[in-house]
Amino acid sequence: MSPPLKSWLGQANEPDCDFPIQNLPYGVFGRDAESPRCGAAIGDAVVDLAVLEAEEVLDAGGSAPVFGRPALNDFMALGPPAWSAVRARLTELLAAGGDPRLERDAALRGRALVPRRDVRLALPFSVAGYTDFYACRQHAFNVGTMFRGPDNALPPNWLHIPIGYNGRASTVVVSGTDVRRPLGQTKPPGADGPRFGPSRRLDIELEVGAVVGASNPMGRPVSVAEADEMIFGYVLLNDWSARDIQAWEYQPLGPFQAKAFATSISPWVVPKAALEPFRVATPDRERPLLPYLHEPGPMLYDIELEVDMRPEGADAATTIARTNYRHMYYSSAQQLAHHAVGGCRMNVGDLLGSGTVSGPERGQFGSLLELSWGGRDPITLDTGETRSFVEDGDTMTLRGWARGDGHRIGFGACTGKVLPAPTLPG
Amino acid sequence: MSPPLKSWLGQANEPDCDFPIQNLPYGVFGRDAESPRCGAAIGDAVVDLAVLEAEEVLDAGGSAPVFGRPALNDFMALGPPAWSAVRARLTELLAAGGDPRLERDAALRGRALVPRRDVRLALPFSVAGYTDFYACRQHAFNVGTMFRGPDNALPPNWLHIPIGYNGRASTVVVSGTDVRRPLGQTKPPGADGPRFGPSRRLDIELEVGAVVGASNPMGRPVSVAEADEMIFGYVLLNDWSARDIQAWEYQPLGPFQAKAFATSISPWVVPKAALEPFRVATPDRERPLLPYLHEPGPMLYDIELEVDMRPEGADAATTIARTNYRHMYYSSAQQLAHHAVGGCRMNVGDLLGSGTVSGPERGQFGSLLELSWGGRDPITLDTGETRSFVEDGDTMTLRGWARGDGHRIGFGACTGKVLPAPTLPG
Repeated sequence: MSPPLKSWLGQANEPDCDFPIQNLPYGVFGRDAESPRCGAAIGDAVVDLAVLEAEEVLDAGGSAPVFGRPALNDFMALGPPAWSAVRARLTELLAAGGDPRLERDAALRGRALVPRRDVRLALPFSVAGYTDFYACRQHAFNVGTMFRGPDNALPPNWLHIPIGYNGRASTVVVSGTDVRRPLGQTKPPGADGPRFGPSRRLDIELEVGAVVGASNPMGRPVSVAEADEMIFGYVLLNDWSARDIQAWEYQPLGPFQAKAFATSISPWVVPKAALEPFRVATPDRERPLLPYLHEPGPMLYDIELEVDMRPEGADAATTIARTNYRHMYYSSAQQLAHHAVGGCRMNVGDLLGSGTVSGPERGQFGSLLELSWGGRDPITLDTGETRSFVEDGDTMTLRGWARGDGHRIGFGACTGKVLPAPTLPG
Repeated sequence: MSPPLKSWLGQANEPDCDFPIQNLPYGVFGRDAESPRCGAAIGDAVVDLAVLEAEEVLDAGGSAPVFGRPALNDFMALGPPAWSAVRARLTELLAAGGDPRLERDAALRGRALVPRRDVRLALPFSVAGYTDFYACRQHAFNVGTMFRGPDNALPPNWLHIPIGYNGRASTVVVSGTDVRRPLGQTKPPGADGPRFGPSRRLDIELEVGAVVGASNPMGRPVSVAEADEMIFGYVLLNDWSARDIQAWEYQPLGPFQAKAFATSISPWVVPKAALEPFRVATPDRERPLLPYLHEPGPMLYDIELEVDMRPEGADAATTIARTNYRHMYYSSAQQLAHHAVGGCRMNVGDLLGSGTVSGPERGQFGSLLELSWGGRDPITLDTGETRSFVEDGDTMTLRGWARGDGHRIGFGACTGKVLPAPTLPG
């Protein structure tokens, strides 16, 4: 057995570092007056890929440079062979005992390696379309039980279809972006008609987002195996939800304003290649799936997930949920194959939310709706405060990592602070 | 009273011409090896706006040229003052007795005026987001009656909210693009589980689409008056729908694959300014609307609409429905204000489908679902054939126009032919 791969960047080899050489996630960053460009995270540094590309140390293989752009889309559009080649080259440049070009050239290193604390992280890719799924059985069961009782919890189609709906791409924001509490229509129980005002049941949803890096022509379905190949990587995703707006609006055409005000994602896209060692299978099927949804191999990942909540002014956050991505019933590859099966064109930059990830125990639920059981049983934070839903000033943070041998493949944080609702114009 | 405005392009003055000088709709066209660029339709010609801009005969007022682009988005992004200025200048250049610059300069005319029959029309704008509404009372009542009976036809929220859902922007296509029948899951009545295959209940929806030409910051609602100002123009829109896929998938999160395979729009965006003389008010409210949805003036338009159906090989199409956009309960401005009220960012290039336009009489219904009453009462075409839904080889065409004094503001045709379903990969 060969010794585990190490980087010549010492901090990257710490066991609790999110960004060891086995990870190398991609993002978009800027510093000072520089225009945003693509980077890769390693240890506590960001590798400026635009500098490496300009110096001809790194070549994505396209007809034009791709890493000076303020989004990963042009790089992703080069396709899986380019993804593999760039990852292999970066590994070679950053590994202890690899190609010494970057390690030995102090001037190049000074320009190409930026301390992460000095950069502003931007949305890593231009979101072409955002689709959100509802693909965790425990979450669907919990929500269904609250609304229809345990005997009718799962809709009749749920065990056959990875149920999804189109979300709003224009309000997908990078971690760290404040989120305004939405205004909207709600109908309190027993009221004659709706009222208008700030949502009173603002929630989060802990999800993993798949980033689509390839497209299919309109009218051309893709298999699950092809779909898996089209996925460039994964992010953490917080699908902010206004439960009271949702309850009043969602019949018959689904959630709309309840989900449109913000969706937060982590700034680093973890390449699918970095997650390969952590593949796990979806659970046994309770009803047989139609053949177009059959998986040729394990398509989920063993990714530990947690949710932190910090009220305004609190010294520390409380971890309110711990779960694992392996609890999904449908994989992102299945979701993508279903998405395209009717002929829908999928684009480079499409983002697919997994659906809320909830484990079987109460402390493993991925939303406050479930953790407080519809607000009937508020949770208590370390500060002694209680919460049924998110209050103004609260900061919500998602974290995730896959545990390797002496290292972990981390996603970094996906965080957002809630600001009070705006006032209406005019 | 001043005499009606005429163009020196004679054909534009014919009373049944869709594109008189009062219209001047915008589109994107190409010819031969030329790259696609922006144009305006008049009579049987297209004005090449990129040529006029390059010759400094027309100036949109931005810091860079906008009309050489293959989409109207850059022009739209300059905002309402630029829209007004360009329209005024084009009117001046094309009116009989106006600025003679184009009329008298044969060389310029030869390059800037292209016969419409010689051009390929492209998607007129890059669709940032596509949202579809359900805002015609008669349509909602018809569909609700079929599924729940007349007493429960309208969902409880319908008279309070312009109900909408996010559609799929990636499959919005220009008129003339063939549409493949989608594959998908359906569950026949009485079956144990779903089957997979081509949709057997393929339908159209006759709609008018509003094209958003301005944006609001995330977290900043807009009033109905502001929303109206943000609308650049209108198109015809066919929201192709697979009713059998929809029936099985739509609970609880709304239509997804049933609507994802294609949405066709007419190639010309009729400027809102051209429709001003045809404004009409939404109908009396059956329940009072919340203040954020109040309209400061008439926000619908008197636009006659019709649907033609032509089977493969038939000599002529049969007009199967005639209705009017004035039958909507909610206007596009109300829909846009609702869309943004929770803080959703709206973008230049967003497309809002009105929802199916159905008038009160059976021949005025805007979908085959309604015209054949769920397939129970097929319609008969002029060829003698009957139809409950769309069959392979059928061509569906929407038309629309507002009737002025001696002219009409036409939308041109929005047409699409249905091809057989694809085969699955693998």
